[in-house]
Amino acid sequence: MDKGRLEAFSDGVIAIIITIMVLELKVPHGDSLELLKPLISVFISYLLSFIYIGIYWNNHHHMFQVVKSVNGAVLWANLHLLFWMSLVPFVTAWMGENNFTKWPTIFYGISLIMCGVAYRILVLSLIRHEGENSLLAEAVGNDFKGRISVVIYAIAIGLAWINPCISFVLYGAVACIWFIPDRRIEKKMIGDEHTT
Amino acid sequence: MDKGRLEAFSDGVIAIIITIMVLELKVPHGDSLELLKPLISVFISYLLSFIYIGIYWNNHHHMFQVVKSVNGAVLWANLHLLFWMSLVPFVTAWMGENNFTKWPTIFYGISLIMCGVAYRILVLSLIRHEGENSLLAEAVGNDFKGRISVVIYAIAIGLAWINPCISFVLYGAVACIWFIPDRRIEKKMIGDEHTT
Amino acid sequence: MDKGRLEAFSDGVIAIIITIMVLELKVPHGDSLELLKPLISVFISYLLSFIYIGIYWNNHHHMFQVVKSVNGAVLWANLHLLFWMSLVPFVTAWMGENNFTKWPTIFYGISLIMCGVAYRILVLSLIRHEGENSLLAEAVGNDFKGRISVVIYAIAIGLAWINPCISFVLYGAVACIWFIPDRRIEKKMIGDEHTT
Amino acid sequence: MDKGRLEAFSDGVIAIIITIMVLELKVPHGDSLELLKPLISVFISYLLSFIYIGIYWNNHHHMFQVVKSVNGAVLWANLHLLFWMSLVPFVTAWMGENNFTKWPTIFYGISLIMCGVAYRILVLSLIRHEGENSLLAEAVGNDFKGRISVVIYAIAIGLAWINPCISFVLYGAVACIWFIPDRRIEKKMIGDEHTT
Repeated sequence: MDKGRLEAFSDGVIAIIITIMVLELKVPHGDSLELLKPLISVFISYLLSFIYIGIYWNNHHHMFQVVKSVNGAVLWANLHLLFWMSLVPFVTAWMGENNFTKWPTIFYGISLIMCGVAYRILVLSLIRHEGENSLLAEAVGNDFKGRISVVIYAIAIGLAWINPCISFVLYGAVACIWFIPDRRIEKKMIGDEHTT
Repeated sequence: MDKGRLEAFSDGVIAIIITIMVLELKVPHGDSLELLKPLISVFISYLLSFIYIGIYWNNHHHMFQVVKSVNGAVLWANLHLLFWMSLVPFVTAWMGENNFTKWPTIFYGISLIMCGVAYRILVLSLIRHEGENSLLAEAVGNDFKGRISVVIYAIAIGLAWINPCISFVLYGAVACIWFIPDRRIEKKMIGDEHTT
Repeated sequence: MDKGRLEAFSDGVIAIIITIMVLELKVPHGDSLELLKPLISVFISYLLSFIYIGIYWNNHHHMFQVVKSVNGAVLWANLHLLFWMSLVPFVTAWMGENNFTKWPTIFYGISLIMCGVAYRILVLSLIRHEGENSLLAEAVGNDFKGRISVVIYAIAIGLAWINPCISFVLYGAVACIWFIPDRRIEKKMIGDEHTT
Repeated sequence: MDKGRLEAFSDGVIAIIITIMVLELKVPHGDSLELLKPLISVFISYLLSFIYIGIYWNNHHHMFQVVKSVNGAVLWANLHLLFWMSLVPFVTAWMGENNFTKWPTIFYGISLIMCGVAYRILVLSLIRHEGENSLLAEAVGNDFKGRISVVIYAIAIGLAWINPCISFVLYGAVACIWFIPDRRIEKKMIGDEHTT
């Protein structure tokens, strides 16, 4: 089955998710500078989520470059990932509007864990479809970054009971780890470049 | 006429439908855990609709893989399907916010029936265009799943007068029937795989 | 210049326009059937606009099938059309929420006229780019349907001072005229079908 | 790495940005003509931003026509541009709802500067990837229009302390400078036209 429409549909959904988050930056009723102050934490929250969704799109993009075709299981694994990503605008707004207090920060972390797990399921369903010796399987390897991220998210959630700001810093730290797109796949692809 | 833009436009509309539903998960004003409680039924309602829209996208995707070209009638049959699908966010939010009471649950079922009927009309208009002996006509066959779904929706609507929860369970049951993408088309396509 | 991205961008904008209109169907706070009553006129208004946007997408789709390439003027003529189309959700909601009274119905008509004019400008800029003897110029011909539509819109706007319901019926009548996609282009293309 | 999905994703995000701005034209509760009056400045603000987003899309479209491939840095430079563009609906609504007073007009200018800077970073990251002797590097040249725009934005922001209307006129003037798509790239491409 062709991968083109899965990519197009995912691009569409991710583009909407990343853009509707800005709707939570509610336009203040008045024109003074002070009215922007309560929006600062919403803005910071939006910025982090924009980076996260950007990371997911980048990695999704990279991964599907080496994918040859998809099957029904991959379609559903992809929809499963999009489902958890679609909840990011909600937790982002909740966390931003409440200035990074305990429960919103915990739920933000849970949604990040679910996205991470869903992404892993997508990778595994693709590897099952493409074969253990495929370019994808080699490129992904043991997925150290993915594993460590989920561990850090879990630690961050635990620390939210002590100080949610530490949690937020940890979420930011994981974003930094992922900021650079997945070189493994880029490297593996150099040999194929002219044929694509 | 080329099918590419019809697919792109449908992907766009379906991507928006599936994503704007999350906007109904209104961000609570406060950061306590209890404030999430009234959102649980909205969340469950969202989850079911996400799966339904996902099923339609999957089947749409599968079906158009074997379609060679489209005509004006197919364009309108497709827009007709998108119209009924565009009402799903409305009935989803209405049902979720009212904890699955009678009328919202009935209207949810009606919108599912209309989507099912519209999908059938799309299939028939495609078969008329492609020919009775086309790959599509063979692959779709007598469409047992489609028929039984509409029957179950109708029963669910009737039972909403007694207990809307039973209706909701039946809607979920139909989703399970459809969860697995249409193997018929996948099977028929195996022979064509390398040429596409 | 390649026409692919212009088509993709237009599809995206039109898909969003056609879908966000449904957000004006505000979910009622309560679960009784009577609460849907005030939504009936919003629904009818939405239905008409959905058909209109569908017609524009269909005709846009048909027209760009025979277009070979685009230039800067065409890009802007297309954005100009999208601008007026983007105002349709606003006038649709205003007309629907006020039960088809005078001013909303007049502004709905004005936005239809502007869309019609913008579409004509797009056609003319395409013909200037493609040449007077191009397939497109032949296929479009003297554009009788386009001219008569604008005349009917103008009459409908005038009649809104007497009875806005007549205006609404006329808007619906024009939609019926356009409902069938532009056969002229479809006919002209039959010869080219296998080469595309 | 293929540029196709970057273009598709950018088209999606830009299409959503340009369309959700219209949601700030809040439907008035009532049907009299006077109720539209407070919307005039929101409409003018929307019009200017529509033109700006249209300009960015046009230039993005033109630029990527001569781009052969992309890398990770380009993906992030592009997301960085989309981030600042995603804030345009917010500043547009804030400026429009407050009738072009000081602070909203200043923030509108700041968001335009950030978009301009982000676009320049995207251009530079593309040139670094494509090479100093690439078609793109030649076509872009010393980017006089880009530099002068940022200077005018800065002047406009400074003048907002005296009279924000002058600032708005200057923003409009820059839009006029950019209105015509980038001829440099179009000219450079003429030789390539038949091969694409």
